[in-house]
Amino acid sequence: MPQIDQTHDRTLRSWLPSANGHQDFPIQNLPFGVFSPPGGTARAGVAIGDAILDLAAALASGLFEGDARQAAEAASGATLNAFLALGAEPRRRLRARLSELLAVGSAAQREVEPCLHAAADCTLHLPASIGDYTDFYVGIHHATNVGQQFRPDNPLLPNYKHVPIGYHGRASSICPSGTPVRRPSGQSKQPDAIGPGFGATQRLDYELELGVWVGRGNALGEAIPIAEAGAHVAGYCLLNDWSARDIQAWEYQPLGPFLAKNFASTISAWVVTPEALAPFRIAQPPRPGGDPAPLPYLMDLADQREGALDLELEVLLLTPGLRAKGLQAHRLGLSNARHMYWTVAQMIAHHTCNGCNLRPGDLLGTGTISGPDATACGSILEATLGGKNPIVLASGEERRFLQDGDEVILRARGRREGFAPIGFGECRATIVPAS
Amino acid sequence: MPQIDQTHDRTLRSWLPSANGHQDFPIQNLPFGVFSPPGGTARAGVAIGDAILDLAAALASGLFEGDARQAAEAASGATLNAFLALGAEPRRRLRARLSELLAVGSAAQREVEPCLHAAADCTLHLPASIGDYTDFYVGIHHATNVGQQFRPDNPLLPNYKHVPIGYHGRASSICPSGTPVRRPSGQSKQPDAIGPGFGATQRLDYELELGVWVGRGNALGEAIPIAEAGAHVAGYCLLNDWSARDIQAWEYQPLGPFLAKNFASTISAWVVTPEALAPFRIAQPPRPGGDPAPLPYLMDLADQREGALDLELEVLLLTPGLRAKGLQAHRLGLSNARHMYWTVAQMIAHHTCNGCNLRPGDLLGTGTISGPDATACGSILEATLGGKNPIVLASGEERRFLQDGDEVILRARGRREGFAPIGFGECRATIVPAS
Repeated sequence: MPQIDQTHDRTLRSWLPSANGHQDFPIQNLPFGVFSPPGGTARAGVAIGDAILDLAAALASGLFEGDARQAAEAASGATLNAFLALGAEPRRRLRARLSELLAVGSAAQREVEPCLHAAADCTLHLPASIGDYTDFYVGIHHATNVGQQFRPDNPLLPNYKHVPIGYHGRASSICPSGTPVRRPSGQSKQPDAIGPGFGATQRLDYELELGVWVGRGNALGEAIPIAEAGAHVAGYCLLNDWSARDIQAWEYQPLGPFLAKNFASTISAWVVTPEALAPFRIAQPPRPGGDPAPLPYLMDLADQREGALDLELEVLLLTPGLRAKGLQAHRLGLSNARHMYWTVAQMIAHHTCNGCNLRPGDLLGTGTISGPDATACGSILEATLGGKNPIVLASGEERRFLQDGDEVILRARGRREGFAPIGFGECRATIVPAS
Repeated sequence: MPQIDQTHDRTLRSWLPSANGHQDFPIQNLPFGVFSPPGGTARAGVAIGDAILDLAAALASGLFEGDARQAAEAASGATLNAFLALGAEPRRRLRARLSELLAVGSAAQREVEPCLHAAADCTLHLPASIGDYTDFYVGIHHATNVGQQFRPDNPLLPNYKHVPIGYHGRASSICPSGTPVRRPSGQSKQPDAIGPGFGATQRLDYELELGVWVGRGNALGEAIPIAEAGAHVAGYCLLNDWSARDIQAWEYQPLGPFLAKNFASTISAWVVTPEALAPFRIAQPPRPGGDPAPLPYLMDLADQREGALDLELEVLLLTPGLRAKGLQAHRLGLSNARHMYWTVAQMIAHHTCNGCNLRPGDLLGTGTISGPDATACGSILEATLGGKNPIVLASGEERRFLQDGDEVILRARGRREGFAPIGFGECRATIVPAS
């Protein structure tokens, strides 16, 4: 199992009461992000329970030394790019020191307390300036389900089990959790219509994905070998790759999705580190019999042994009707990151095998991660079979696709016997009407 | 015709002798860029003849006032992003002042002279930090020619004449002219092979494109109406969208080109302004009979009247054999920007019709612009019919695709009766062997 140390100890408790048993941010997590306290400017912070630790303030109080200090300095600007670029060791040192500072018995509790802000009073921002955003397609159940609807005769194309398929997305429209999403307009064409029309999408969808933050980059022209790929990952987030299916169906050939996707992507604001996720790494599930072996540049024994992630991924829907009746959000799907056909290391090795350069703060999406059955769909297109079978909610409402006022909430959760469960914080956004 | 003023006067001459009759940079052009003089840091400049005017130095010498001063201030950092964001009016004022300063009879010649650097001694950089790069597909002859090879039965897909097809490209690997391009490796599959292989591409290609620099951006969720699209263009460049055709053929379905394109794109380093190009604007060529009318969001009378560009686009090849024998570069194709099926304004209106936000310094590619006949191919895939008909060079060499050591050179040139011809400067790069 990847490096497990004292920061993962399940018995570790914080002197900050809200951290203990917190569903997302117990002391075993310590994700990094960028926030503004009330009336303050954007700055880096660490989520702990219901609070955020101001890293620059802690740095100014002299709470860090050596490598941890260097990492905290890199993390004390208005974006985390310089911190993401550092690589694992300084990040690990800073994490260890933060764990020490926040743990019961910390000698520095009195110095740390003034550096905490109530998270509820703060605004979360994108954690980094995103240079390039690439979205993959590694959820094989999703690829199969959607392929069946777009290409009934040919759901999974011949390249799928050889190539970690990916494409470039739009960086400018990536928003932190909480930013409303405007229903996009665009061209679409009814299958039996003579020509296309223009208007607000009628088939608005979410996509349940993991996001991967690139840490250290690579020089243009130099591939990252798969055995080194893990060292280039700085963290993870949730990613909702909103999609307009009617626009997509009409525009996507031959160059792929464009306006169907680039109107907004929502991410959870906290960077959950590879260190925090170490307990939840698992072996790659064996490939089904008959599947081809990956080409050598995508093969690594360590990656096979511990390159997959066991993370529950959940998507929930809160509609105006549910809200009005005081009902809970409806679970649209419960999936797991273990359903990725390719690992993150394989994604990175593939992305750079042609010399393409990744930069610190680049974001990779996994693509929609659905599970093998109908309770684990990562998009409404799958859950309703393209709108044919509406979802019926406890409020009496029906949904074939998303309506204005609907809020979609993604959650991730790591659970493993002997370890404290951790979460990612929410990735949520509400649809506002087309302009 | 778009605003023509005294800066376009063909009789205007500069006191700098190399500017007069310069093929690219006479006083009627005045493109902006970022350069380093020997031993100096990156800074903004203006190309004039064989020299570059250091804008920050000119600013420090008190050569600008009012709006021109504001524009020069925005243009005096290490990237032009803030300048690009300004919009047309300050840019026009700065251009007018630069024209005055550099013209024969300028009262300030003595103050300007120390601000000039010999271009040959300087290094050119990317003019802006590129947030997002989008590549379109508006060259209808290219789309038809390539479609015939990838989809013989179905060259031009049903959406082509309705949708200005585009997709997201990679910003990190965009390089200024002169940066060598490493031959990429990747997965490809021979049509009759059982599985794919991995290796250096055997079908390396160039693509002759115009690049469009985005100036003022738009807020997320707010479309740019076509009538306002022109105001969001800050300038133009040449763009070589290098492509690995064997990788592309295997990877591109269903999400579009990825590693086949993102290993490098080369641009010319100078931002040629819409003002400099005003004399070369022409009416959109009439759509062939039977073609559908564009949907209303893509229709604008002024755009129909003067939204197209009459610019010669040339692509040349210099091989090791030609070089060794002292022979000239071989012209691979001579095309024209008038062969775009969609205008730049239509590209921008389409890109933002779903609310997608453009930012200052974003780059749009037009896609390959080929002409209607075999002398006007914008890619070698077209010129050799997919490698079937090799090009024979004066050196005796043959080319089906690009070889290591080959240099591809793009040029653009505006010519119009009554106006001084201008060019873009070169967009050139040499292929180095795969690593």
